[in-house]
Amino acid sequence: MPGTSPPRLIALDWGTSSLRAWLLGDDGRILAVRRREFGVLGVTGDDPGSPARDYEIAFDLACGNWLDANPDLPAIACGMVGSAQGWREACYLTIPTDLDIGAADLTVVPHSRGVVHLVPGLRVASATGRAVAGDVMRGEETQIIGVLGLLPPTEHPVTIVLPGTHSKWTRVEDHKIASFVTSMTGEVYGLMMKHSILGRTAAAGIRDDAAFERGLAAGGSLPSHGLLAELFGARVLVLDGLLDPASVPDYVSGVIIGDEIRHLLPEYAPDNRILLCGNTDLCRRYAQGLRPHGVVTETVAEEAAAAGLWHVAVTAGLVRPTPGAIPGKGTP
Amino acid sequence: MPGTSPPRLIALDWGTSSLRAWLLGDDGRILAVRRREFGVLGVTGDDPGSPARDYEIAFDLACGNWLDANPDLPAIACGMVGSAQGWREACYLTIPTDLDIGAADLTVVPHSRGVVHLVPGLRVASATGRAVAGDVMRGEETQIIGVLGLLPPTEHPVTIVLPGTHSKWTRVEDHKIASFVTSMTGEVYGLMMKHSILGRTAAAGIRDDAAFERGLAAGGSLPSHGLLAELFGARVLVLDGLLDPASVPDYVSGVIIGDEIRHLLPEYAPDNRILLCGNTDLCRRYAQGLRPHGVVTETVAEEAAAAGLWHVAVTAGLVRPTPGAIPGKGTP
Repeated sequence: MPGTSPPRLIALDWGTSSLRAWLLGDDGRILAVRRREFGVLGVTGDDPGSPARDYEIAFDLACGNWLDANPDLPAIACGMVGSAQGWREACYLTIPTDLDIGAADLTVVPHSRGVVHLVPGLRVASATGRAVAGDVMRGEETQIIGVLGLLPPTEHPVTIVLPGTHSKWTRVEDHKIASFVTSMTGEVYGLMMKHSILGRTAAAGIRDDAAFERGLAAGGSLPSHGLLAELFGARVLVLDGLLDPASVPDYVSGVIIGDEIRHLLPEYAPDNRILLCGNTDLCRRYAQGLRPHGVVTETVAEEAAAAGLWHVAVTAGLVRPTPGAIPGKGTP
Repeated sequence: MPGTSPPRLIALDWGTSSLRAWLLGDDGRILAVRRREFGVLGVTGDDPGSPARDYEIAFDLACGNWLDANPDLPAIACGMVGSAQGWREACYLTIPTDLDIGAADLTVVPHSRGVVHLVPGLRVASATGRAVAGDVMRGEETQIIGVLGLLPPTEHPVTIVLPGTHSKWTRVEDHKIASFVTSMTGEVYGLMMKHSILGRTAAAGIRDDAAFERGLAAGGSLPSHGLLAELFGARVLVLDGLLDPASVPDYVSGVIIGDEIRHLLPEYAPDNRILLCGNTDLCRRYAQGLRPHGVVTETVAEEAAAAGLWHVAVTAGLVRPTPGAIPGKGTP
């Protein structure tokens, strides 16, 4: 039960635009959680002059009082904090790779009150010969570890989709990450609404599921004029009085997610099952977009990152598993 | 010969971000040309309080001294100046339509020194039943009229592509605009370079045709992970040391144009011939992207809008055709 366990681990999911910090107790149970708006971009700003010091200050603001009370607590972090623009650059594991991340895979960042361990990211190597782009993730690998630990063990391949600024579609086979691909879904949506002519066409938004559904149909239809053309359709529908300006955001969201699903579904859901992990509203949108394709979805809560960080900390020996079940590993 | 003709017409191509004004003489020959940065967005700004007065001031700044010298000169304008955010809303002609725009199709805007005639835009009607988006153009119809007039008369169907902020792919059959589609190519490119993580990945640009070619291949390849995924590849290639940050803009341009061509070519170039009309560098990029598909391209200069405005002015009776050839109509 929360509150009955002493603190065991400080766990951080430190991304581009925000940070979440958990104080975890026995078995990885969540004792406390905080969200701070100083993501990697917020810490370094435009002047990456003395990033180590800036990150230490940010870490102290987020977790300092947890360390005051328990100075020897180990700390672990995943996400863009391990990028070249982060606190220190952590390595990448190249796929296919299993997810038994050990102590040797972690990057140790010393600071004035101890150390923080950074979880490695994953990469698909670019094909140097043909210069075909590979891919990278930082943070989502930890969510995936958390998701897999929260599920009953299975030998079947699993597709996990993590919607967000840079959505990830991941295929797990034989307990290994077999492939993944990044789609700039959330970022492009934000740019369109904030800076494009469609943003000027839009009015203050209301939630309009029917408009989202229409956008999905436009973005996912075949033959297609492509995303660049289907997006412009939002403006035309408004000019023709067939779309309320207040519904433009949901329509555009549908077009973009529809285009993403159209392109990635054939490779990533041969078994018509997808696990969704992330923000509740986003997962609902993906489930709605996948349903007409006959794909069965299951949604896993965002706290997967906390479970994943606990699991890595156990595997790497930063914390000792409490006798009994370890969330994230199923019952032995 | 330039200079030997008295002025006959003031012609404006007044778009979203800029304005071009021509002083035209007999046969539509260009006597003078000006470019001003006050497009529709520049005139109305954030306060569309008294647009008619603002447009009149802008018109006077651009062409006032031409009117001083010749107070009775007729004036004609095409482009977003005829949109709901423009000087006055001009009508749309619904396709399929021929391009014999007459006096009844022009919208007359009175001002303190006379009138300006606005050329109608074109629209593809949205399918109301299924709420499938149609399309719109304002300004490109006049460039198309100009392009067709600059060519030897032909009975064959013609595909004309006008690259730009909102690229237009147009099919002309039986002297009618049979279909067209808008691709937000230039706008999305600008957003990606100015506001996205790819812009932060990029360094000050050099021209790199090889990077553009690689981007084209990524954006146009099949099977495809889609535009949203291929764009992220630019970042990964930089991280992997396979793309110079200074070449990111050309790579991204290639990905976006490659995606556009992949989607629109099947419908718009059944005869493997395309006329390109617009900015020289952009037309070069499209020609490069179309060549591997076996498409023969021909590039027509940007001044097509001036020829088109002259042609409309003649058809509508604003100016009298000088005896002899009319540029834009071929020799009778």
